Amino acid sequence: MEGEPTAFGSAYRLLSGAVVPRPIAWVGSRSADGVDNLAPYSFFNVVTPEPPTLVVSAYGRGDDLKDTARNAVDRGAFVVHVVTRAFAEAMNETSATLPPGESEFEHAGLTPAEATEVDAPRIADAPVAFECSLVETTEVGASTLLFGEVQWAHVDEELLDDAGKFDVRDLDAVGRLSGSYYAATDDRFAMERPP
Amino acid sequence: MEGEPTAFGSAYRLLSGAVVPRPIAWVGSRSADGVDNLAPYSFFNVVTPEPPTLVVSAYGRGDDLKDTARNAVDRGAFVVHVVTRAFAEAMNETSATLPPGESEFEHAGLTPAEATEVDAPRIADAPVAFECSLVETTEVGASTLLFGEVQWAHVDEELLDDAGKFDVRDLDAVGRLSGSYYAATDDRFAMERPP
Repeated sequence: MEGEPTAFGSAYRLLSGAVVPRPIAWVGSRSADGVDNLAPYSFFNVVTPEPPTLVVSAYGRGDDLKDTARNAVDRGAFVVHVVTRAFAEAMNETSATLPPGESEFEHAGLTPAEATEVDAPRIADAPVAFECSLVETTEVGASTLLFGEVQWAHVDEELLDDAGKFDVRDLDAVGRLSGSYYAATDDRFAMERPP
Repeated sequence: MEGEPTAFGSAYRLLSGAVVPRPIAWVGSRSADGVDNLAPYSFFNVVTPEPPTLVVSAYGRGDDLKDTARNAVDRGAFVVHVVTRAFAEAMNETSATLPPGESEFEHAGLTPAEATEVDAPRIADAPVAFECSLVETTEVGASTLLFGEVQWAHVDEELLDDAGKFDVRDLDAVGRLSGSYYAATDDRFAMERPP
């Protein structure tokens, strides 16, 4: 079948269902009032390694930003955590709608820690955390892109090889599908890139 | 361990290893000379559903763009295909470096078809193809972001439910990890979003 994107349920349903699996940015941020926030976003990826930059797209724009985007703008910073299988349920808990002033850290039973280089909270025992300074925001349609340059990284020793380099083989990251579905990444295969 | 992103092998190694699994944009484009190109990109995601917009980040900028980015700019268009398990090996073949003038379609044994609404080639039997018009390019560091608005979609009937809506459950998409590794998405689990 072919047609405009809206012909398949909705454009959101089609894009979020077909552009999979998506990496999940579990974003820690701090409000102007000092309330720590944590929320998952899957319209997220690497932008470039030079300089190391990530991008998170948040629905909303202008004066109608969600907490994460508003906080990132107010503090000029956010922290991106990678979601592994052991943290999946806690991540899901942080997508609940909480009363103003209540932190998702407490709600999901997660221990916050201060970021080293930026003004945002991080999850103390997350296997990977990227401390980002907000370097640019760009509105595209109904959404706002948050570009974050990685200033500092926290990585569990178990994810490093003997030479101290990051080793993807030990990371059991969770990917976002759509609806209620997520994908584990245990089922792997290898293909050598041709010359 | 904590440190600057370069402290873990390289920033590329750290980001491409930790921001996983990434969806793969298998991008069809056409050069000014009329050569059809096909190449995989995994710094890719949905930007927003309103209007339906995707973004692909390609390494290179200014006068030093890769074929896909150059073609997208020259023709104002590209087509994004979703990579399923059955197409994974062919996708990998299209990352080979070919002589100028040789098309990846022929090299990988794929049948091209004309896009319906934009000036770019598509894979005739790909399960999902998004025809995009290039609406903006943005340089970030060493890379160039290609923003594409989805004008037209091709979706295999088997991926639609009885009401004609896209159903992620039947899509065996492949995600990019890093190095030579990819993840299948058969190993799924469900979590209901809290209220």
